[in-house]
Amino acid sequence: MFTLYYAPATCALATHLALEYAGAPYRAESVDFHKQQQRSPEFLRINPKGRVPALATEQGILTETPALLHFIAQSFPEAKLAPLDDAFLMAKVNEFNNYLCATVHVAHAHRVRGYRWADDAAAIEAMKQKVPQTMGDCFALIEERMLKGPWVLGERFSISDPYLFTITRWLEGDGVDVARFPKVADHMRRMEADPVVRKVLADWAA
Amino acid sequence: MFTLYYAPATCALATHLALEYAGAPYRAESVDFHKQQQRSPEFLRINPKGRVPALATEQGILTETPALLHFIAQSFPEAKLAPLDDAFLMAKVNEFNNYLCATVHVAHAHRVRGYRWADDAAAIEAMKQKVPQTMGDCFALIEERMLKGPWVLGERFSISDPYLFTITRWLEGDGVDVARFPKVADHMRRMEADPVVRKVLADWAA
Ligand SMILES: N[C@@H](CCC(=O)N[C@@H](CS)C(=O)NCC(=O)O)C(=O)O
Ligand SMILES: N[C@@H](CCC(=O)N[C@@H](CS)C(=O)NCC(=O)O)C(=O)O
Repeated sequence: MFTLYYAPATCALATHLALEYAGAPYRAESVDFHKQQQRSPEFLRINPKGRVPALATEQGILTETPALLHFIAQSFPEAKLAPLDDAFLMAKVNEFNNYLCATVHVAHAHRVRGYRWADDAAAIEAMKQKVPQTMGDCFALIEERMLKGPWVLGERFSISDPYLFTITRWLEGDGVDVARFPKVADHMRRMEADPVVRKVLADWAA
Repeated sequence: MFTLYYAPATCALATHLALEYAGAPYRAESVDFHKQQQRSPEFLRINPKGRVPALATEQGILTETPALLHFIAQSFPEAKLAPLDDAFLMAKVNEFNNYLCATVHVAHAHRVRGYRWADDAAAIEAMKQKVPQTMGDCFALIEERMLKGPWVLGERFSISDPYLFTITRWLEGDGVDVARFPKVADHMRRMEADPVVRKVLADWAA
């Protein structure tokens, strides 16, 4: 039995969805960001980085979305959530997920958490201003070069799909119209219609 | 036969070292950052992100350091560069590598490439100022919570070791004294003494 630590509207959605698609036994425990619970001594004992997602397993705690997604796919191979035995295709999945994690998620974070990288209020405001452009550039690359369609890998659904969906949901708040990216918009609509997605989002809203 | 696209002093060192440790057949081709070759139409056809590393394989191009490291370990299992069949330990390796990629490398990039996240010169300067603190915080976490010693995973050498070494080498330029982190400093010294590391760094300097 795993425990997933998450907070609504965060990147933890990708891991939450992957656990559902895998049929993994887990319970979800929310971390209250309004109360800054992610910085409490209790939570820092779980994840010293003070972030979600964190997944408690019988062998210990795991963090970092691409690592968690790969772990879930490898732990539940019968769910066929990744091309585990094809080194090249598996690398394509990890490449996509690492790009989301290290470039796209990071671009987004400059709107809401600029204080990580500068102390000065004007600098934090300057970072915010650029987010529509950086997120727009990232999604142009995803649309044109990365998302094969209908799923990230093409015909085959994988752990990259819930991750892309998770970050696509941030575009509106980041000032980017998803309609500029027809394949991404279509991907988002198909994910939104998925019963697994509806169930998890309903639980998060509850 | 692989082709590794790299530039000196970049994160491509981790992938270059992993190819050597794996005994992979490859040739290394340098991309001249002084001439902005990473933004040339020729290189953008190889990697539309305009970055190194990129690895040309017979099946296509791969990018993103954690994905490349995992790919090399999986393609050359006899080199035992990762605990491929242990989902939890493999996730620990990926977690470490993703942290380097998405948090530590990104913190460092705010000193040299702040223009990615703001247009304003004062904001870019404010980002630079904070790098000694953010990089120091990241390495404090690595020292205290992540690097088991003597290698990242403990007794077992893995793809996380050349990656940690690659980023540790940036500390001095980032205004952080590695001596604050005795385990990291010891790790760096052992890597520096490694004949594989000496060979690759000598080639890069040639
Ligand atoms: N690289 C990590 C990033 C995790 C992350 O930044 N999570 C955010 C939510 S999307 C968080 O917990 N932020 C809390 C905070 O910064 O206080 C991953 O991909 O899992
Ligand atoms: N997430 C990528 C980052 C690659 C990256 O940022 N590479 C830098 C060198 S360390 C680069 O090519 N920069 C060139 C530029 O920004 O123009 C990875 O981990 O491989």
